[in-house]
Amino acid sequence: MDQRALRYEQLADELAGMIAGRILRPGDRLPSVRRLAHEKKLSISTVVQALRQLEERGQVEARPQSGFFVRLPSPSQDPQLAPQTRKRMARPVAVDINNRLMRVLALNNRTEMLPLGAALPAAELLPIANLQRLYGIVGRRSGALLDAASHTALNHPDLVRQFVRHSLAWGQPLAADEIVVANSCTEALSLCLRTVTRPGDIPRDGMSVDALEIATCERRIAACLLVSNFNNPLGSLIPDHEKKRLTELMAARKIPVIEDDIFGNLHFGPDRPWPVKSFDTTGNVMLCSSLSKTLSPALRLGYVAAGRFHAEILMQKTLTSGATNPVTQAVVARYLESTAYDRHLRGLRRAYEKQVMQMSEAVLRYFPAGTRLSQPQGGFVLWVELPAGIDSAALFDEAVKVGIPFVPGDLFSASGHYRNCLRLNCGNPWSARFEEAIQRLGSLAAMVAPSAK
Amino acid sequence: MDQRALRYEQLADELAGMIAGRILRPGDRLPSVRRLAHEKKLSISTVVQALRQLEERGQVEARPQSGFFVRLPSPSQDPQLAPQTRKRMARPVAVDINNRLMRVLALNNRTEMLPLGAALPAAELLPIANLQRLYGIVGRRSGALLDAASHTALNHPDLVRQFVRHSLAWGQPLAADEIVVANSCTEALSLCLRTVTRPGDIPRDGMSVDALEIATCERRIAACLLVSNFNNPLGSLIPDHEKKRLTELMAARKIPVIEDDIFGNLHFGPDRPWPVKSFDTTGNVMLCSSLSKTLSPALRLGYVAAGRFHAEILMQKTLTSGATNPVTQAVVARYLESTAYDRHLRGLRRAYEKQVMQMSEAVLRYFPAGTRLSQPQGGFVLWVELPAGIDSAALFDEAVKVGIPFVPGDLFSASGHYRNCLRLNCGNPWSARFEEAIQRLGSLAAMVAPSAK
Repeated sequence: MDQRALRYEQLADELAGMIAGRILRPGDRLPSVRRLAHEKKLSISTVVQALRQLEERGQVEARPQSGFFVRLPSPSQDPQLAPQTRKRMARPVAVDINNRLMRVLALNNRTEMLPLGAALPAAELLPIANLQRLYGIVGRRSGALLDAASHTALNHPDLVRQFVRHSLAWGQPLAADEIVVANSCTEALSLCLRTVTRPGDIPRDGMSVDALEIATCERRIAACLLVSNFNNPLGSLIPDHEKKRLTELMAARKIPVIEDDIFGNLHFGPDRPWPVKSFDTTGNVMLCSSLSKTLSPALRLGYVAAGRFHAEILMQKTLTSGATNPVTQAVVARYLESTAYDRHLRGLRRAYEKQVMQMSEAVLRYFPAGTRLSQPQGGFVLWVELPAGIDSAALFDEAVKVGIPFVPGDLFSASGHYRNCLRLNCGNPWSARFEEAIQRLGSLAAMVAPSAK
Repeated sequence: MDQRALRYEQLADELAGMIAGRILRPGDRLPSVRRLAHEKKLSISTVVQALRQLEERGQVEARPQSGFFVRLPSPSQDPQLAPQTRKRMARPVAVDINNRLMRVLALNNRTEMLPLGAALPAAELLPIANLQRLYGIVGRRSGALLDAASHTALNHPDLVRQFVRHSLAWGQPLAADEIVVANSCTEALSLCLRTVTRPGDIPRDGMSVDALEIATCERRIAACLLVSNFNNPLGSLIPDHEKKRLTELMAARKIPVIEDDIFGNLHFGPDRPWPVKSFDTTGNVMLCSSLSKTLSPALRLGYVAAGRFHAEILMQKTLTSGATNPVTQAVVARYLESTAYDRHLRGLRRAYEKQVMQMSEAVLRYFPAGTRLSQPQGGFVLWVELPAGIDSAALFDEAVKVGIPFVPGDLFSASGHYRNCLRLNCGNPWSARFEEAIQRLGSLAAMVAPSAK
């Protein structure tokens, strides 16, 4: 096959790949022969030859005076016409916790799967109509927000003001000048970790202050990362006196505290518990949160109140991702300013509490005898401990086949513990579908039990 | 002072701090006595005492039947009423390149400063009205985009399709399945670096392929980070045959290439140069870009076409920041789909080329004899080499005093070189203001010249 033949074949295959990949869709006009020749650095005749070949393959049609257009695919079309660029597919990587977590999260995008995996609320519980309206309003008036200069400022002042205003209820409110807006609570947390830890350091999860105190004596600890209010997956709450003790202990030991308070507003009790941050008087606590569990995970808007680490966090944010979209910042600022936010939170708390209760009852009814449950004091996830010996990873494989994903317990352990545990998302209003799913999950659990083998 | 006195003093100071910090603004209603007592875990009488004190200080006023409201500040107000929370101010950090860079960037937010520092276009050159309109339209229809499930998908398919469509002109287009949408080109680049480098590694800037080849023989290189089209600050362009050679060399040496193509669409010549990525057949090149130099830096939207590193990049993105706002993705997808985009780019290229020319002429006219200039083939920054011995950092200090910031040359060097160089942003339409500023800068340069001392 001579060079020239090869070249027109290549171009034909490439365009075919674009059509197969639906980059070029039926009815789309192909670039002109002259433009293709110019851009691809090919001769006119080579390009024409390539287009003719596509025409023969029935993939494009020439329209007099107007060029070549993509045809509707014919059923008989050659399945071998994959995008040439496929050769750049990702290579397989070693399977570890992160990879398994990625797969569990990915299942959330599949409509045939019940949303019991990722900790996400149902759309119907979110104030989406309000947010849409605000995007419409703010969007049309966002000229100043979108101009070049605006993005070099990381924070929209109105949004920072709202974050501070909503912390007024805490023992000690946030300071406007310590806040850095981020693209999510996740980003806020990784900014904190990059600021105070080095690769190889292992942040200590501060569930028990006693355990933490012992640990600080045993080895150097780079940072204490914790969820003090309704931690995921247990939904438990650190009492105020323990929060105070922890804050003072970490300050005395000069161990930075990174607090994830994303569930803090979702309390089942009458009061919004204070974050550990409220007990901090030395700026040693970095508080991270976002609107993902209360307004919409799609907003991608969080923040860190960084205390004494503010300057470093500011730099990390600037150097690793830059500012956060100001239109979204303004939209959220407008919503948090409104009274609708508090009303929405009240209703949302009631809904989550009810859903956690309904899920708990179903699990107790349908799961094998000896199954134990967390009793969340807030949030919307339920932690289930199956009778010893039941492998939740094995259960997961069976459950996914019937469209019932959850998060296997060992994904919450760096050391492979909790193999007989699993986490259920209770973010969705209860229905017969969930009732049946939990019943099905219960019988599957009994099936994979060692005694059943 | 007894405990109780202390407590009401504290509450009064805290509320005063909120007023001083304009978190609570004149006319705002304070939380009710009952609510404050409940949330702050104080007695009713302590709260009342605190509010009375604020009333005496003239900061709040009691309105019958409706509670306490913030008063307009009286000029005689005590300047000592700083927010209590100020004690959490960031601690000073060591001054290094990053800190200096942060300060240079910060100057961009100050209106009295001429925008010669950060490489940012003037708002009037950007299609902001179009983007506003699209935010309005997409925003109002964004229900599905904002629901909980959507955010677990990192990419909006329409946007990915557009990124691929606009790469059709390249020798080898991007593959839809290798693209990960990011919050900026900056985030895309840091995702790549985190994926293929370890702390301590030093990415090699591949200006000269020969130098790069020698370097690969001398030591282990973790990654090659380069701007092949109109690099910042020189605006130079790597010729196609060198791009090809570099791609093959790095593939052979198994050294991942991270390409920053953010200026690629801003060519002064007739053709859009191909990125190095277009010469890559092994998936060894990660291409990063964004809309910040062409549409608006405020969008905070970029991407990486990650080749064989796709799976790891996907994981890094998920674990460090999560998805990217889908409303903005849809807005940009709509714009890139329109014919307006190509028209806009054509006009923008002409404008940038003209502005770079006007800036060059002014620098040659007003700067000390012996000043040398880059001759950018694209982009909108100009690199100026002052006669040996003129310290651009010293010039910077003088220039900022008169509101003419730029980027000192040594900020582009990890080893403190280019001290007699500086970078000028040409992103703004030329005007007498700039003419005078460059003239002023020229005389300041002559002043700080060693001969002048």
